[in-house]
Amino acid sequence: MSKVWQGNGIITLTTDFGVQDPFVGVMKGAILSRYPSTTIVDLTHAVQPYWPVEAGFWLSRSFSYFPAGTVHVAVVDPGVGTARKILIIEAMGHCFLAPDNGLLASLLRRHAGARMHALEPAYLDRFNLPIASATFHGRDIFAPIAAELAHGRCRPGELGDEVTQILADPKWEPTVSPEEIAGMVITVDRFGNLITNIEGQFLNQFARPALQAGGRKFRFARTYAEGRLGECLALVNAFGVIEIAQVQGDASLELGLRRGAEVILNSEL
Amino acid sequence: MSKVWQGNGIITLTTDFGVQDPFVGVMKGAILSRYPSTTIVDLTHAVQPYWPVEAGFWLSRSFSYFPAGTVHVAVVDPGVGTARKILIIEAMGHCFLAPDNGLLASLLRRHAGARMHALEPAYLDRFNLPIASATFHGRDIFAPIAAELAHGRCRPGELGDEVTQILADPKWEPTVSPEEIAGMVITVDRFGNLITNIEGQFLNQFARPALQAGGRKFRFARTYAEGRLGECLALVNAFGVIEIAQVQGDASLELGLRRGAEVILNSEL
Amino acid sequence: MSKVWQGNGIITLTTDFGVQDPFVGVMKGAILSRYPSTTIVDLTHAVQPYWPVEAGFWLSRSFSYFPAGTVHVAVVDPGVGTARKILIIEAMGHCFLAPDNGLLASLLRRHAGARMHALEPAYLDRFNLPIASATFHGRDIFAPIAAELAHGRCRPGELGDEVTQILADPKWEPTVSPEEIAGMVITVDRFGNLITNIEGQFLNQFARPALQAGGRKFRFARTYAEGRLGECLALVNAFGVIEIAQVQGDASLELGLRRGAEVILNSEL
Repeated sequence: MSKVWQGNGIITLTTDFGVQDPFVGVMKGAILSRYPSTTIVDLTHAVQPYWPVEAGFWLSRSFSYFPAGTVHVAVVDPGVGTARKILIIEAMGHCFLAPDNGLLASLLRRHAGARMHALEPAYLDRFNLPIASATFHGRDIFAPIAAELAHGRCRPGELGDEVTQILADPKWEPTVSPEEIAGMVITVDRFGNLITNIEGQFLNQFARPALQAGGRKFRFARTYAEGRLGECLALVNAFGVIEIAQVQGDASLELGLRRGAEVILNSEL
Repeated sequence: MSKVWQGNGIITLTTDFGVQDPFVGVMKGAILSRYPSTTIVDLTHAVQPYWPVEAGFWLSRSFSYFPAGTVHVAVVDPGVGTARKILIIEAMGHCFLAPDNGLLASLLRRHAGARMHALEPAYLDRFNLPIASATFHGRDIFAPIAAELAHGRCRPGELGDEVTQILADPKWEPTVSPEEIAGMVITVDRFGNLITNIEGQFLNQFARPALQAGGRKFRFARTYAEGRLGECLALVNAFGVIEIAQVQGDASLELGLRRGAEVILNSEL
Repeated sequence: MSKVWQGNGIITLTTDFGVQDPFVGVMKGAILSRYPSTTIVDLTHAVQPYWPVEAGFWLSRSFSYFPAGTVHVAVVDPGVGTARKILIIEAMGHCFLAPDNGLLASLLRRHAGARMHALEPAYLDRFNLPIASATFHGRDIFAPIAAELAHGRCRPGELGDEVTQILADPKWEPTVSPEEIAGMVITVDRFGNLITNIEGQFLNQFARPALQAGGRKFRFARTYAEGRLGECLALVNAFGVIEIAQVQGDASLELGLRRGAEVILNSEL
């Protein structure tokens, strides 16, 4: 992958800030104040507060649609103002900035060869950063550093010491056995589709796969259009993971299932 | 209008994807991966799922505020993954991409001289498209093709065979007679204003026009400020159609009316 | 500050339009139709309808994170279509466009040396503006004028006569005495934090400050992380004002307090 970091001037933002307040707009101001030509793309700002794993899930499934050299900033940061580290990770030609709270764990598990560093205040002097507030590092640290990286004024490795270990919580990972894959609903999308952390490729493990959740079993289809109106079915979605969808309906509402609900992939009896 | 298509590098997006998930962000990534200099504008992503007519309404009322050469992508696509066609339409110097499910019908009815084509996979080989997922053509087909069109690397007519007929559902159209115009609420805006599919110019047909909906009659005003606080009144809005608004209130809530509600313009008795 | 106005090509938008409808998108179209290279940043579109003070609050706390030469458009405008003035104000090297309804009062109170003008239709002839609709001046007046200013084609002072007085409502201002500061909740953010109009610097006035609201007293902390899970506490937030937050919870919900609620800063007994 990229031998030497080359920022391409594009930054994506993933937060739990919502869009009702100007928090995201102010981060963009902090970026544009440094480099007015930056292209900034909102990935999502509706991550469930205090649930970093959802941000990491979406980021890991989305970043590759952006050109190499993009800087991806993810701020879901209940520990802001404490001693938690800020990670800066280079992987697959992209750069990722996020607090060290498990957010990036699933992304790193899927992509080998990452170079990981922890932002070190002493290394940042030359960037003339503002004195960071205690509660809004997105604006005061993440945004300006992302801008510098995106425009190639520094390399990820220049911003802090290398780290070899990051926080990760095994409970967010599916457990895999020959008989079944046990995962969970990691996010619910706008349509009420229940999106799981189970890779679609696990389907190949079973001759006649079925999905269980909330005490019910679901057959697999290829598209939403293959089911009857109102039917709930399982499919491998466009991000490569298994989801449960209701045809022209809201599966989350219909089934009463939400983030964190257990989902099991196994063989139809 | 435009003799030869000239993309101006601007793309608008209209979908029912919402903004809570990164679907829109990923479409932008797919565009920027091809042409990092593209300017992308969100028109709305809150179209009611499975109601293409709302997307078409807003698009037909909004596109002309963008410069000629803009590519407008509209994805409200319950039939994604089926054999439904993807339309590519050049009209008024703008280019429109949408599934052939009635979405563009009202726009085309208002603007003559459109050139209409249906995307043909065999014509797309040179663009190195990804293998399309079954459920996310917005990212895999609409976004990259829009990018190519916006930057003038192809003309609408090069992407598929001409079509002369598109899907349209007459129930979305007002019925017009000398005595009355019968239409419907096509969208409810953020303020609860009930926006109809009845053109404001029909007002001229009546010496003393009145609007009926939900068993009540409404007088016409010129601005919101002409009514008493809390009064519901009819007016021709800034997009040229009739709406019912409550002065500093929410007409939809007040009247219990929603999308699809019948509205009749006729003469005050 | 700026001797001669220099637009930098960046425009921020603050409205109560929401993002469910294409009102904001259409304003962007009107800007890009004039200057396709404009960078447009959404500050917030979720201002409570008919409550201009919230827009002014956020704008006054956000604008300085953008580079000098930015044009900030704020449209919360229940009086649209009436004779209310449109203000164009140059302050601190930035330019602000808003209706004269109190929206900009708090910003101007905090920053001396502003030059204030009222848009005068007769001065606008050279810009070839559309005939303004009665209800959407954001699109028909604010957007095109902001575009001209952002690209330096005119100076704020060329657009109308100078004004020395703007509308301001004293009830939005805190009352200050040696014993206490009485303010109010001016906005509730996405996390349910109750953000007040009391400057953090008033804390210095008290040896042992405490905050009262809704019949309860709150201690001051430095970050969210200093409290126990579920505790409600007061802090000076990243925008320099006092807020009440619940640790990993929603203070507004927990306390039953909303915009407009009275908040008192005084000395702990």
